[in-house]
Amino acid sequence: MFKAIFEPKSVAIIGASREPSKIGHAILANFIDGGFEGDIYPINPNVDEILGLKVYKSVKELKGKVDLVVVAVPAQIVPQVMKEAGEAGVKGAIIITGGFSEIGKKDLENEVERIIKKYEIATVGVNCLGIFDPVSRVDTLFLPYYKLERPRSGGIGFITQSGAIGSAVLDWAAKEGFGVSKFISYGNATDLDEVDFLEYLGKDKKTKVIVMYLEGVKKGKKFMEVAKKVTKKKPIVVIKAGKTEKGARAVQSHTGALAGSAEVYSAVFKQCNIVEVETIEELFDLARAFDNLPLPKGKRTQIITNGGGMGVLCADALIENNLELAEMSDEIKNKLKEKFPPHVVVSNPMDLIGDADIGRYELALDAAVEDKNVDAIIVVVLYQTVGIQSGVVDIILKATNKSDKPILVVSSGGAYTETHMRMLEVSGVPAYSSVSRAVKTLEKMWEYSVKNVGKE
Amino acid sequence: MFKAIFEPKSVAIIGASREPSKIGHAILANFIDGGFEGDIYPINPNVDEILGLKVYKSVKELKGKVDLVVVAVPAQIVPQVMKEAGEAGVKGAIIITGGFSEIGKKDLENEVERIIKKYEIATVGVNCLGIFDPVSRVDTLFLPYYKLERPRSGGIGFITQSGAIGSAVLDWAAKEGFGVSKFISYGNATDLDEVDFLEYLGKDKKTKVIVMYLEGVKKGKKFMEVAKKVTKKKPIVVIKAGKTEKGARAVQSHTGALAGSAEVYSAVFKQCNIVEVETIEELFDLARAFDNLPLPKGKRTQIITNGGGMGVLCADALIENNLELAEMSDEIKNKLKEKFPPHVVVSNPMDLIGDADIGRYELALDAAVEDKNVDAIIVVVLYQTVGIQSGVVDIILKATNKSDKPILVVSSGGAYTETHMRMLEVSGVPAYSSVSRAVKTLEKMWEYSVKNVGKE
Repeated sequence: MFKAIFEPKSVAIIGASREPSKIGHAILANFIDGGFEGDIYPINPNVDEILGLKVYKSVKELKGKVDLVVVAVPAQIVPQVMKEAGEAGVKGAIIITGGFSEIGKKDLENEVERIIKKYEIATVGVNCLGIFDPVSRVDTLFLPYYKLERPRSGGIGFITQSGAIGSAVLDWAAKEGFGVSKFISYGNATDLDEVDFLEYLGKDKKTKVIVMYLEGVKKGKKFMEVAKKVTKKKPIVVIKAGKTEKGARAVQSHTGALAGSAEVYSAVFKQCNIVEVETIEELFDLARAFDNLPLPKGKRTQIITNGGGMGVLCADALIENNLELAEMSDEIKNKLKEKFPPHVVVSNPMDLIGDADIGRYELALDAAVEDKNVDAIIVVVLYQTVGIQSGVVDIILKATNKSDKPILVVSSGGAYTETHMRMLEVSGVPAYSSVSRAVKTLEKMWEYSVKNVGKE
Repeated sequence: MFKAIFEPKSVAIIGASREPSKIGHAILANFIDGGFEGDIYPINPNVDEILGLKVYKSVKELKGKVDLVVVAVPAQIVPQVMKEAGEAGVKGAIIITGGFSEIGKKDLENEVERIIKKYEIATVGVNCLGIFDPVSRVDTLFLPYYKLERPRSGGIGFITQSGAIGSAVLDWAAKEGFGVSKFISYGNATDLDEVDFLEYLGKDKKTKVIVMYLEGVKKGKKFMEVAKKVTKKKPIVVIKAGKTEKGARAVQSHTGALAGSAEVYSAVFKQCNIVEVETIEELFDLARAFDNLPLPKGKRTQIITNGGGMGVLCADALIENNLELAEMSDEIKNKLKEKFPPHVVVSNPMDLIGDADIGRYELALDAAVEDKNVDAIIVVVLYQTVGIQSGVVDIILKATNKSDKPILVVSSGGAYTETHMRMLEVSGVPAYSSVSRAVKTLEKMWEYSVKNVGKE
């Protein structure tokens, strides 16, 4: 059922249009240009050809040939085209069209629901952005690439109730170099809802961590059942909107969902070992860590830095977040002291000093990866100093490859710094713009990890 | 005294070098290329010409001609060159050279101090990055522009005890488009210290807000006296490192300062109406707001958004940070309802809906600026939607120009979004990457504002 949606062999765009400003045009263009390898059928009764493809008057002409329909016709026509899709044997649908229960037209949405159920069409929507899959290239986001960049393929599965937040975050994720397995914006959830997608991504091999923007959950009990199972295998990170009374009221005028009390939700999340966060930035700070790094087996953290002040801030943040400063073994420390110049501070924070070259990073990282007293490593690299060259990226990648401990990188700066952060990020090493973000991430990873160990 | 440092008519680089990898070369090159308009004298007894400039053997040859010396010679020669500078009538010095008390050579530093005091040379350093002034172009940061971008001229005065944090943050500030009045990294504070610079920036007309990275303060009483005076005129934002016991220990091995207890510092900051923050990002989130925006006169905040979910998150964040959702007058709301299509939610959050064009932003912003029930405005602009074009930047700038309330912009996305955020930022409108950052900023602005009103 989900295969028809995420990995269809053929897709029909119902409401395909010649007019570049129309949604039905943008979707068709993105399927063609985005590299979707299956068959693409534009459907429109009034046109013969769009973007070089033959246009069909109805999906009924393609009986048995279409796995997925993407629907972008006016709301009142949706029941009819879904009936035709059902008769044509279509198994999956993504209905972009809005104008249903969210503006009071509950009857029209019910009619669509009856047809979907009758023909057993697994449906995303109505009133949604739909799906982006970076591998199969199913892409119903009706926005040009310059407005909405598409992220690289990776392990983050992203489920969002809000289309606007979804697209803003996806765009940002692409720029930052994060890897996404599936993006799902499901709108009114006329058929498939957050629980269905959670279950699906829980089983999806490409997805290593699931992130969710939630305004409310309809089937609380089912949600908990599924979440508990999923979090034993992979982490779920949630941001819950509408936590305050006023926020909840805003939720109601947004999607009509019942937000429920913040305390109840937080208690539920805790019970299911779902990681709850407060901001979109935290959501992805965690997602990219879970996607790429091994879980910490303890909370003893070694700081390595070429800026003393950053080391101090990092030590403060670790203690304030209930983590610990690792104490490396005397043997390893003595070895380091022999190799380093005398002004390097072999302690925790390990201050490689502003004149550090990349060789010092290599020695320090190797030692921390080897030392049994270290559970996690935070490496601060300030690229402004003379001794730091691009080679530091390779040294960090090498350390990461042989490490069974999480290594989180922190850098802060301008274009030169950002270029190197991106190099790490697309190679699967999360790079954070401040020590506080890295430390908060590590703390939540540890929380997830320790609870899960208890459960197994 | 400070004039010789920040606005010298002439500068001598003692230790100027032909060797591009040397600090004394980088500093000279940056004075020449950076656009410093006064006279530049390289000093080096072994060379005749560097970068096309005549080289002098000693600053003594230039008696009466030099306002400022920048010193980048080995530590043991510093006393001698400072003596020569004193004899030549130099009034200001920036001593970059390290290798004094921070590595145990207290005697050598004391000797330098005696000479400075004897000749009354106002001195920044020793062991520091020194100064960057974007107007006078005094620039002793011995790093090429590609490693460390220089920010535009603006109202943020930045005092930092840590050179590494200083340069990382300056580089980042440049990329983000923040405006800086003075950057001061003062190292060991052999002569001038944080209190002196605080007093100076307090009086400096170009500086609208002072941000400080502090590890410790030596003269507590004087610091408080000065800070209390300054915060009546302009805000001070501080990040204090070494707040935990372990962090404090790290501070000692970093600059040897006594960090002191976090509680004591926080109490002192509160008493002086200094805004304390926890992260570097917060430091500059506040700095650019204070630099550019009027202070809020109350806490009633209007949210305007084209993404419903962002509106909900923003409402949550406002309530959680003790701010209030504004209730616009019925008259103004009714006017808006007449002009907007029926699906726009004229409330708080005001949801202009995903199909919003920039005209809707203009109407909503004008109304919120006009309405007496609104003290502050948060505008969420998601650039991913079809209706939002670059013109929205002009609409926000227009609203900001006529508003006596702070307007904070929030956007999230990729390159297209970032381009527009930067357009706003360099025009003096702070643009934040998440609602939580904007709300926290507004909350601290309100705190500063309300305490100051009480004091006057």
